[in-house]
Amino acid sequence: MSTDPVVKSLDSMEEVWEAFRPELNEVEAKIQTHLDSHAPLIHTVADHILSSGGKRIRPLLLILSARLFGYLEKDYLLLGSLIEFIHTATLLHDDVIDEADLRRGKQTARRVWGNQASILVGDYLYSQAMALIASFHNHDINEIMADACRKMAEGEVLQLCANSQSDLTEEAYLKIVEYKTATLVAASCKVGAIIGGATLEEQMALSRFGFNLGMAFQLADDRLDYSADHTRLGKSLGQDIRQGMITLPLLHLLQTCSPSEQSWLKEKIRTHSVDDQELERILKLMRAQGSLAYATSRAREYIEASALDLAAFPNSLAKRSLAIVSCYMVNRDQ
Amino acid sequence: MSTDPVVKSLDSMEEVWEAFRPELNEVEAKIQTHLDSHAPLIHTVADHILSSGGKRIRPLLLILSARLFGYLEKDYLLLGSLIEFIHTATLLHDDVIDEADLRRGKQTARRVWGNQASILVGDYLYSQAMALIASFHNHDINEIMADACRKMAEGEVLQLCANSQSDLTEEAYLKIVEYKTATLVAASCKVGAIIGGATLEEQMALSRFGFNLGMAFQLADDRLDYSADHTRLGKSLGQDIRQGMITLPLLHLLQTCSPSEQSWLKEKIRTHSVDDQELERILKLMRAQGSLAYATSRAREYIEASALDLAAFPNSLAKRSLAIVSCYMVNRDQ
Repeated sequence: MSTDPVVKSLDSMEEVWEAFRPELNEVEAKIQTHLDSHAPLIHTVADHILSSGGKRIRPLLLILSARLFGYLEKDYLLLGSLIEFIHTATLLHDDVIDEADLRRGKQTARRVWGNQASILVGDYLYSQAMALIASFHNHDINEIMADACRKMAEGEVLQLCANSQSDLTEEAYLKIVEYKTATLVAASCKVGAIIGGATLEEQMALSRFGFNLGMAFQLADDRLDYSADHTRLGKSLGQDIRQGMITLPLLHLLQTCSPSEQSWLKEKIRTHSVDDQELERILKLMRAQGSLAYATSRAREYIEASALDLAAFPNSLAKRSLAIVSCYMVNRDQ
Repeated sequence: MSTDPVVKSLDSMEEVWEAFRPELNEVEAKIQTHLDSHAPLIHTVADHILSSGGKRIRPLLLILSARLFGYLEKDYLLLGSLIEFIHTATLLHDDVIDEADLRRGKQTARRVWGNQASILVGDYLYSQAMALIASFHNHDINEIMADACRKMAEGEVLQLCANSQSDLTEEAYLKIVEYKTATLVAASCKVGAIIGGATLEEQMALSRFGFNLGMAFQLADDRLDYSADHTRLGKSLGQDIRQGMITLPLLHLLQTCSPSEQSWLKEKIRTHSVDDQELERILKLMRAQGSLAYATSRAREYIEASALDLAAFPNSLAKRSLAIVSCYMVNRDQ
């Protein structure tokens, strides 16, 4: 049984993007409309990063989650743009925090317009999003989105404090991933479910689904930093360790390598000094210890968990699409 | 006729603070309670700036505005703490933008914990405020506060773009003051009025009252940068021009001085290079042209306008207090 008017079989992420192109185009149009303000610099800076090839995965999840409950109206699509505003605000601030020069193969906003503009335009995008979300007059949506933003900020602070801490536990690492990434993905799905008229139980299922997807997404992303084809990722390998950021492959390696290798790694993490030859050695150690395979298997566990929350829903184009997005989360660019 | 149980005559700002000490203490307690999170650094950094002697003028205005309509309950006082969170978030980001080392005579958070912590804790305070405001389930309050935040961010961007622009108009300067300062003061008063059960017309009157107070406050603050006793202000004179920031006294001077003085001033603004001797020359020119008196008289005009919106209300402790706060806005530390 399907709640969608046209059910056809979808097989790839490309087909999912294509099937929901009209909705995503409307999200895109609303992004542009709501960038206008008294300060043209806001549009310029925000457009630079918003047009740099982001996939709009969160708006897509919002759309699919609403569709899962048979919701076909388009009155809520602005929310998809606003979730993208919030995501973009965190990227602008992240790039200042990380002193990043490149994002998706393109100069970062802070490189072009400076840290000041990046901080302030981030603030603007975030508050513009909250102001327009408030205009929907839905308390649940207000609270979910504001709470997600709070957790994201908390996650960023936790990550800052964890920097260069070689004794970081996997539990603490996963808490950071949950706060900085999974929370907003979970919120996108839950808000979609609310729009779609889901019951509280169904809302919780979609929230868990999004949480698991978000966890898998970040774990896969952290793994890519040690294994991606750098021309596809648009940045060079090993950025995380060079900034003292400890992610799952490195955590696994620290816990499984020899004491002398561990001492050497801790020194590299402490001093943020890793040259290309040393990175090669780290990658070799990771392959030997199975650290990359471990990170992949942990990401896959989250994807498997997400499937459980989808299973209860009747077959539909939306359900099939959500399953495809799940797989895409751990299989991109590898 | 008074809506307050005890009406006594108040004469000074000290007496106003004293009369509303119990409410302000509760605001203070709620500030501390809601700083707790998974990241102790948030509490440390936020407490550093929140305990640095800020007057809590916005929470006081919220309380007085609710009292003006006879509201005596204390269930809304958390909102006062949250307005202070939002104000503090902007200060944390401002200090990063301005590369400031001192605030109220104390090292800035960015000097002690770095720019990264200041940016992220600012983000946290802002989003924590929005999350807790949402929990009041009042659409008007959500929209007023979110809109104020959006305007503040927009005002900061406008100010950044106006930096070193000697051809800034007074109109553009006043728009920046409105957005970055007056909006949040207006919101504090309007939200207080809503809590107090004011009619829409009364809400608008309190919003205008707060707007005029906020304008006067910022104009007086900008004037103090050229005339304050630096030991009382906790920072040295002439900070604004040294950062290329053009405020009302300088705008007036630029418009009234001789062409050669104007060229010299424009060069100083363009290069941000003003030594102590040059600052003395600027201050002397300002006194000669009446630039400081002009700024004071413009601030007083806003205070006079604020009095018009108070006039219609019956006499009460709250009304008397609001009038005293008005005067305090343009007469502090001079």
